[in-house]
Amino acid sequence: MADPTHLPDTAPAQSGSPLFRRVAILGIGLIGSSLARAVRFHELATEIVGGDASAAVCATAERLGVVDRATTDCAAACAGADLVVLSTPVGKLGDVATRIAPMLDPEAIVTDVGSVKQAVIRDVGAVLPAGVHFVPGHPIAGTEHSGPESGFATLFQGRWCILTPPPGTNEAAVAKVTELWQRCGSTIEVMDAGHHDRVLAITSHLPHLIAYTIVGTAVDLAEESRSEVIKFSASGFRDFTRIAASDPVMWRDIFLNNREAVLEIIQRFTEDLTALQRAIRWGEGDTLQERFTRTRAIRRAIIDAHQA
Amino acid sequence: MADPTHLPDTAPAQSGSPLFRRVAILGIGLIGSSLARAVRFHELATEIVGGDASAAVCATAERLGVVDRATTDCAAACAGADLVVLSTPVGKLGDVATRIAPMLDPEAIVTDVGSVKQAVIRDVGAVLPAGVHFVPGHPIAGTEHSGPESGFATLFQGRWCILTPPPGTNEAAVAKVTELWQRCGSTIEVMDAGHHDRVLAITSHLPHLIAYTIVGTAVDLAEESRSEVIKFSASGFRDFTRIAASDPVMWRDIFLNNREAVLEIIQRFTEDLTALQRAIRWGEGDTLQERFTRTRAIRRAIIDAHQA
Repeated sequence: MADPTHLPDTAPAQSGSPLFRRVAILGIGLIGSSLARAVRFHELATEIVGGDASAAVCATAERLGVVDRATTDCAAACAGADLVVLSTPVGKLGDVATRIAPMLDPEAIVTDVGSVKQAVIRDVGAVLPAGVHFVPGHPIAGTEHSGPESGFATLFQGRWCILTPPPGTNEAAVAKVTELWQRCGSTIEVMDAGHHDRVLAITSHLPHLIAYTIVGTAVDLAEESRSEVIKFSASGFRDFTRIAASDPVMWRDIFLNNREAVLEIIQRFTEDLTALQRAIRWGEGDTLQERFTRTRAIRRAIIDAHQA
Repeated sequence: MADPTHLPDTAPAQSGSPLFRRVAILGIGLIGSSLARAVRFHELATEIVGGDASAAVCATAERLGVVDRATTDCAAACAGADLVVLSTPVGKLGDVATRIAPMLDPEAIVTDVGSVKQAVIRDVGAVLPAGVHFVPGHPIAGTEHSGPESGFATLFQGRWCILTPPPGTNEAAVAKVTELWQRCGSTIEVMDAGHHDRVLAITSHLPHLIAYTIVGTAVDLAEESRSEVIKFSASGFRDFTRIAASDPVMWRDIFLNNREAVLEIIQRFTEDLTALQRAIRWGEGDTLQERFTRTRAIRRAIIDAHQA
């Protein structure tokens, strides 16, 4: 987490008037419900409408007061909305965009929170009507928990939010989405979608894949060993199990939709692991020590960047 | 961390008289200095003597009051000690044991805190004089920090400590080492050294190797990408950098001294990662989702076991 002393205690200075009339949030999970809470807390919209394929999730979101109303009809949720936030798993975004397209206000802004950006631009950007402004986004925030109950209004405070508007995207729309996230406490970075996908492949996608893998390897151990793995779960494995508790559908979609960048980084990782494996096999202590020493500098840099 | 509500606030009921006359702690790093602090806090010894190859570490340990006195002469540190704790990196244990052997009290107890046990029994057990009781141990506790300043007296509270006494080890000595750790707040498990090494290979050694690898992969990225990896370090990678900041010499020695078990588990891990890599390449979403779903149960079990 970023240093909490750097975070604003209250809504930023530019607050005062709602930024949007009606915000529709489609997909009321961890991110969607957190954004709904933040929008409400910072008074960024007059009305918040939720949409989710699950009636149970809609009922929970209404009961928690996360949204003003919720419906399983995503297209209906978008009626009259000047901002639509797509926060379903990435694999569903194209389908959702297709279904809501006929219902969107002519000048509505559509944004998303997906962890991959090239595939989303391909799937969503292509099906939205002319006039509607699509501003692809990715808040770098989350926990291993899922569902509307797990959200909280401060999730985005002190975190980065990356926007990847394709060339030609309406500047006023980018400015409004920027202000949305800034007023939720985030710092905005604009970058190319392909670059985003390569950076996130190593900072987020590969670590999750590896955590899923190693915990899966443990699951496959004989019953007796498995119970001892749980019992003596030390630092390292324990952290991996937390990461490997993340939403399976969301992560399935991320890997399928950032395939090239993820496969490229798996390849590099495997080469590096094989080199260490070989050093262990042949007792090359100097190689191991040299490799283990240089990684400390990265940790130091991350602490200095207030990301740890 | 274990649930703090399960931890004793004060020394356990059996406290009252020092367990040892003079404790010598050889290697005053994170674990050694934490044990010294815990021994002092719980009044488990009349005197604590530190030994460390580094004069600077000895001076720091004395200045911090972690030990009563410290010396770079490990053999001298052991004179008159009824308990000697070896807490150097595993690769040095055989050499240290050889050097202290002539100086040990005839019935002294020697224990260690090494993360591998078969190699330690081989290297240490063989060189100690007859009459001296060697009780191999491994407190499952630690942080990514190193050195005498990083220790703290509560490090072992609510944690496991595994003892792996070979058949025939003096029972009274095992009982005293058991009581030492129990009075530091740990729960004792006795197991076979080979079994210990296999379980720790997956719960601790492989996660550390992977964390070092992935952070190293990031270090090798082009300068621009590397700075963005630091900047947008998300959950996952951030956790890995913490693990990869652990002491390089300690971890070099662990891998070199638990070679067979680590190589075996790397092999299993690589097979599993390759299967996921293939599923990503061929777009097999069901395989990914199924694999990602079953790992949640392990997380649940670890939380229930109060290890997270």
